[in-house]
Amino acid sequence: MSQSAVTSAPAPSGGIPDRMRAAVLFGPGDLRVVERDVPSYGPDEVLVRVAMCGACGTDLKILDGHFPQTPPFGEYTPGHEWTGTIVAVGSNVDEFAPGDKVCIEAHRGCGRCANCVTGKYTACLNYGDTGKGHRATGMTTDGGFAEYAVHHVSALYRLPEHLSPEDAVLITTAGTGLYGLDTAQGYIVGQTVVVFGPGAVGLMTAQVCKVMGAAKVILVGTRQSRLDLGLRLGVDQVVNAQETDPVERVLELTGGVGPDLTIEASGGPSTPQQAVEVTKRGGKILFVAFYPGKVEFDLSAAIRKDITMYTSRGEGGNNVERAVALAASGALRGKELVTHHFPLEQIGEAFRVIREREGDPLKVVIVP
Amino acid sequence: MSQSAVTSAPAPSGGIPDRMRAAVLFGPGDLRVVERDVPSYGPDEVLVRVAMCGACGTDLKILDGHFPQTPPFGEYTPGHEWTGTIVAVGSNVDEFAPGDKVCIEAHRGCGRCANCVTGKYTACLNYGDTGKGHRATGMTTDGGFAEYAVHHVSALYRLPEHLSPEDAVLITTAGTGLYGLDTAQGYIVGQTVVVFGPGAVGLMTAQVCKVMGAAKVILVGTRQSRLDLGLRLGVDQVVNAQETDPVERVLELTGGVGPDLTIEASGGPSTPQQAVEVTKRGGKILFVAFYPGKVEFDLSAAIRKDITMYTSRGEGGNNVERAVALAASGALRGKELVTHHFPLEQIGEAFRVIREREGDPLKVVIVP
Amino acid sequence: MSQSAVTSAPAPSGGIPDRMRAAVLFGPGDLRVVERDVPSYGPDEVLVRVAMCGACGTDLKILDGHFPQTPPFGEYTPGHEWTGTIVAVGSNVDEFAPGDKVCIEAHRGCGRCANCVTGKYTACLNYGDTGKGHRATGMTTDGGFAEYAVHHVSALYRLPEHLSPEDAVLITTAGTGLYGLDTAQGYIVGQTVVVFGPGAVGLMTAQVCKVMGAAKVILVGTRQSRLDLGLRLGVDQVVNAQETDPVERVLELTGGVGPDLTIEASGGPSTPQQAVEVTKRGGKILFVAFYPGKVEFDLSAAIRKDITMYTSRGEGGNNVERAVALAASGALRGKELVTHHFPLEQIGEAFRVIREREGDPLKVVIVP
Amino acid sequence: MSQSAVTSAPAPSGGIPDRMRAAVLFGPGDLRVVERDVPSYGPDEVLVRVAMCGACGTDLKILDGHFPQTPPFGEYTPGHEWTGTIVAVGSNVDEFAPGDKVCIEAHRGCGRCANCVTGKYTACLNYGDTGKGHRATGMTTDGGFAEYAVHHVSALYRLPEHLSPEDAVLITTAGTGLYGLDTAQGYIVGQTVVVFGPGAVGLMTAQVCKVMGAAKVILVGTRQSRLDLGLRLGVDQVVNAQETDPVERVLELTGGVGPDLTIEASGGPSTPQQAVEVTKRGGKILFVAFYPGKVEFDLSAAIRKDITMYTSRGEGGNNVERAVALAASGALRGKELVTHHFPLEQIGEAFRVIREREGDPLKVVIVP
Repeated sequence: MSQSAVTSAPAPSGGIPDRMRAAVLFGPGDLRVVERDVPSYGPDEVLVRVAMCGACGTDLKILDGHFPQTPPFGEYTPGHEWTGTIVAVGSNVDEFAPGDKVCIEAHRGCGRCANCVTGKYTACLNYGDTGKGHRATGMTTDGGFAEYAVHHVSALYRLPEHLSPEDAVLITTAGTGLYGLDTAQGYIVGQTVVVFGPGAVGLMTAQVCKVMGAAKVILVGTRQSRLDLGLRLGVDQVVNAQETDPVERVLELTGGVGPDLTIEASGGPSTPQQAVEVTKRGGKILFVAFYPGKVEFDLSAAIRKDITMYTSRGEGGNNVERAVALAASGALRGKELVTHHFPLEQIGEAFRVIREREGDPLKVVIVP
Repeated sequence: MSQSAVTSAPAPSGGIPDRMRAAVLFGPGDLRVVERDVPSYGPDEVLVRVAMCGACGTDLKILDGHFPQTPPFGEYTPGHEWTGTIVAVGSNVDEFAPGDKVCIEAHRGCGRCANCVTGKYTACLNYGDTGKGHRATGMTTDGGFAEYAVHHVSALYRLPEHLSPEDAVLITTAGTGLYGLDTAQGYIVGQTVVVFGPGAVGLMTAQVCKVMGAAKVILVGTRQSRLDLGLRLGVDQVVNAQETDPVERVLELTGGVGPDLTIEASGGPSTPQQAVEVTKRGGKILFVAFYPGKVEFDLSAAIRKDITMYTSRGEGGNNVERAVALAASGALRGKELVTHHFPLEQIGEAFRVIREREGDPLKVVIVP
Repeated sequence: MSQSAVTSAPAPSGGIPDRMRAAVLFGPGDLRVVERDVPSYGPDEVLVRVAMCGACGTDLKILDGHFPQTPPFGEYTPGHEWTGTIVAVGSNVDEFAPGDKVCIEAHRGCGRCANCVTGKYTACLNYGDTGKGHRATGMTTDGGFAEYAVHHVSALYRLPEHLSPEDAVLITTAGTGLYGLDTAQGYIVGQTVVVFGPGAVGLMTAQVCKVMGAAKVILVGTRQSRLDLGLRLGVDQVVNAQETDPVERVLELTGGVGPDLTIEASGGPSTPQQAVEVTKRGGKILFVAFYPGKVEFDLSAAIRKDITMYTSRGEGGNNVERAVALAASGALRGKELVTHHFPLEQIGEAFRVIREREGDPLKVVIVP
Repeated sequence: MSQSAVTSAPAPSGGIPDRMRAAVLFGPGDLRVVERDVPSYGPDEVLVRVAMCGACGTDLKILDGHFPQTPPFGEYTPGHEWTGTIVAVGSNVDEFAPGDKVCIEAHRGCGRCANCVTGKYTACLNYGDTGKGHRATGMTTDGGFAEYAVHHVSALYRLPEHLSPEDAVLITTAGTGLYGLDTAQGYIVGQTVVVFGPGAVGLMTAQVCKVMGAAKVILVGTRQSRLDLGLRLGVDQVVNAQETDPVERVLELTGGVGPDLTIEASGGPSTPQQAVEVTKRGGKILFVAFYPGKVEFDLSAAIRKDITMYTSRGEGGNNVERAVALAASGALRGKELVTHHFPLEQIGEAFRVIREREGDPLKVVIVP
């Protein structure tokens, strides 16, 4: 990490070991748990003993070698949904102290490009340039599938004592939904929202919509178990797209007018079309998923209906701070989404479970 | 009302009488309950049997003859916070039917000026011009201190059966707070809000902030009884400005940084200065009160702190529809604010109680 | 028109004849110029002697019978880009007087639905319901391919004396671009904009971007004649997509970063993909065209790049008033876009020319 | 500068001397030109040979010792409107190279507080904390009344060769106006704007409004010479408040409706009241001035008129980049505002001229 070379990183002191166990990607599909140096950190960074790190669909792409701008094979530790306890802080850091429990957001922008200075750091124009200060933990720099990880002070949030690591992992996920709602000027109080896709992002975002006062949140999915979890987490109505036509049903549930806001969190290739069809004239669609390939839909219909289409990639706009506040008060529940725990040594098995959907994994976490 | 002359108002039929009791303003301070014709209504209007009408500080100014653009003395019935049951609908109305319970917003814009077509109908450039379709019920046209009242279909909202008239009156009040938050781009989820002034507007707006996911709502006032009511309605902390310096205390409660949003609902001449002092750098102030005279404060400090100052006058932006949805689910509670009921014949006594603050009136309602 | 029946339309007086020539659609492809009654008008409407009416691609769909919510065959006169001189005003109209030259916007919302009251009248929820006051002239009500036309006072703008009817027709077109920029929060001063599609909408919108202070406007198209016209109208650079790869060239012209805003005005099925590829991270795409069918593009890339996609349908948000002001000062030039004039009797020939692109028609106008 | 201590600043090389002349504030009113070390710079900073530095009203407050968070007396060099040529760049800087001419914005936020990460760096919560990376050049760190100055790469903009240092100084000033318009969601194309106060900020902001397509810009002031300059710079109309009542006259010039946007750049204690009186219902006021003390105005009127009040302090939101683009094309003219030049040694005389308004100084610059 070139930045550490430039800045005079204080040596880890006290009980911090020199070496640690970390999952390192040696090539496509070749993730091994090996021994590494505990990373050094800069004056505006902290060193964290990782308590837990979530795994998600993006990690599958990373493992397969399909993610741009990652560090070289043989050096790179993925993992971008981690939480833990600070063990050392850089010389310029007084916001945190060793012993603080923290959760994170993945992106730290360069702080100097036109996008970062105007607050759009997930769209940093120096994306991947660690020399200029950018870091997307677990994506462009080493992440949390390891015993220790480093992050910039601007991307860390203090975790209230009573919250569990599982909650902390899902706080990061909720930050994505919140940032999307922020981008979409989320004044949804008293309105109707439809969420497609009851995965981790969808379920956290649906919860967030209820917290923001949406009058009715309708969750659309194909697995009844997840829809049931959505109901337990507070959504108002669910639509099982295996059993009924989701467009027809959503229109029926919204008096034929459609929702004010549709959130597409499924990543299914046919869902964008459904989103356009259900959304109210003059309404909004927020895309927070990625698709396996190009997507086809009736763009003219979106135009004819005066629909604005927002997108969100990652948890920007300081929204993780908002998510922490909501989780602290109990308004946002993350722990219930965690279906599987694996120790770091079994990370390979963890990804097999995710890939094969064995046991209906919703959120799988690694405990280093 | 010239418009009724133009349009062919259907005669009230069935059980609707020709004459009714109404409070009419004959001159400054001279409000009398007299007999009048039940009003006629246009093709896009409805006739409502008024169940209840709230009285507020603005009504005192109206009674004293200090309100601009009111109808002539001897003809004019005030009352702008009313609710009731529809008894007849105009020929172009299919959104409502007789028997529907409704609550209202006061303003119906002309629908043709530059402000109305862009959605700013509380700032209608044809304010008071009934010929062009503007009506601010109880202010520029006859209002709800009467057995029957007329309103335009665009300013009516269906009231769920289980809500009381008291709730309905306060829904209109909540609409003011919501419109202010709408104007201020109310993405307050997870943030800190301070509300000055626990009157009806302040208490409803504080509730709204909690419904929208504000992490911490601090209510500042001088009467402990109202602060206690605020706590019962869900605010997180209260500051009694009689007992402690409110600026110091709010800063203390917000880690020295101040709230992201300060809502000034007190109308006290020194509160704008306090609002500027407490608000976070880069934060917002929303003014939803009126002041007895000019106000003096450190505008330079607001500028130095990059504070934007929003204002809200009345319940625009279709926000009463949102308020109805919140009240329907129980998220917004209005009934508890109603401290006094008076029959229409005792409307003079009602205003004496308000003016003299006899028995700490919070929301006084008239039952015609 | 049911509304006229309700309201007491004053009879046309003075020099206004009872009968007129109008193009009436009798069935798909069957547009005939016939004699009709001069239309009656309501109290909030005006009667206009049409001076000129533009024809556009949407009219082709209308003629082919592929446009929803039009009046019945045998009664319906299309034409939604018209201008002329007022000959009579409704009883509630004092904004205009006979003799005033006016230009129009097509849409008059109902003024009562949730979208209209919040300023989104091109997305009126009562679209096509003339009884409730909606009218999209030439689309859901009779339009300007006739000697006389009626419109609501809210959708009319006074035309300065020195502007020509050709300018007036293009002012309506510019209103579409302006509304799109309004929707996209058009703070483009000092920024880079790319416009795909040098048709009438594209050329007027590109001009608007220069007027709004865009530092660099790049126009992409396939016909050199139109690109040259773009240069004469003030765009900074052009890209001929027949001669060079437009994505590569635009990136080259923008330092590899791409434009802050991409405006898609071409309606070409492959252009949305190009728009996503060129647009800057964190940038915006504005769609103001319609496509022949569904469109396929890499939506994931738009999400990964944090791009917001705005749409605009018609000239809402009172933007035609802005367009008039710009045209009045000479900042916006419309006349140069008009390539063909036809008298009303030759309207069939006019549409043949448009359909067959004979003589490279850019804007074809009818003179009734 | 503690940060330089932490980071390994490369030693100035080549033709860069070790010592320089700089104006240093030794106490209130005690500004002396002395010899100092040429400053060191960090890895993300550059060293600039200052060509020119503007002086303004804020500097008077600084000289009088009335500005918060400045460096200690005896060390501190003011000057926040400077321009020059880069002579050395930090180890992480590849955006610039020695020989580049640059202009600046004053503020570099910490890049880590809640305001900075969301793009509000002029409201940095670590304002004045150089250890955390904040610097407001000439205010919280050493500035441009010296031969050499240091700045962070994020607050520098490349100056086109054909622009003069005078233009560069005023580009910074224009950045303040642009940021204000950005904050106020400056979609002013085709609208009417009134600017109070034809000082440097007012004149640059008025120009910006014309560049952004405002249909009519009215400039209000008390000195005819400045109003005349405004006309030469492109404003449409001027009002001499010494000769006529400005409120009456502005209303007359705007058809009794008032401007859509009022910009208060005068700092006169009675102007906020005038701003409220003239502004259109539903309009906006932007404050970009500071006042000698508290200000009194009819806040209720602002509320009744649904006016939003924006403020701007400094040139945030990357708006100096926009200003550079406008100046580059000749759309923005700065040089004509510079009335007085002084060499660094005569800086005392320069401030005497400003303070005593000798020779009607508009923009006074220092040439070190």
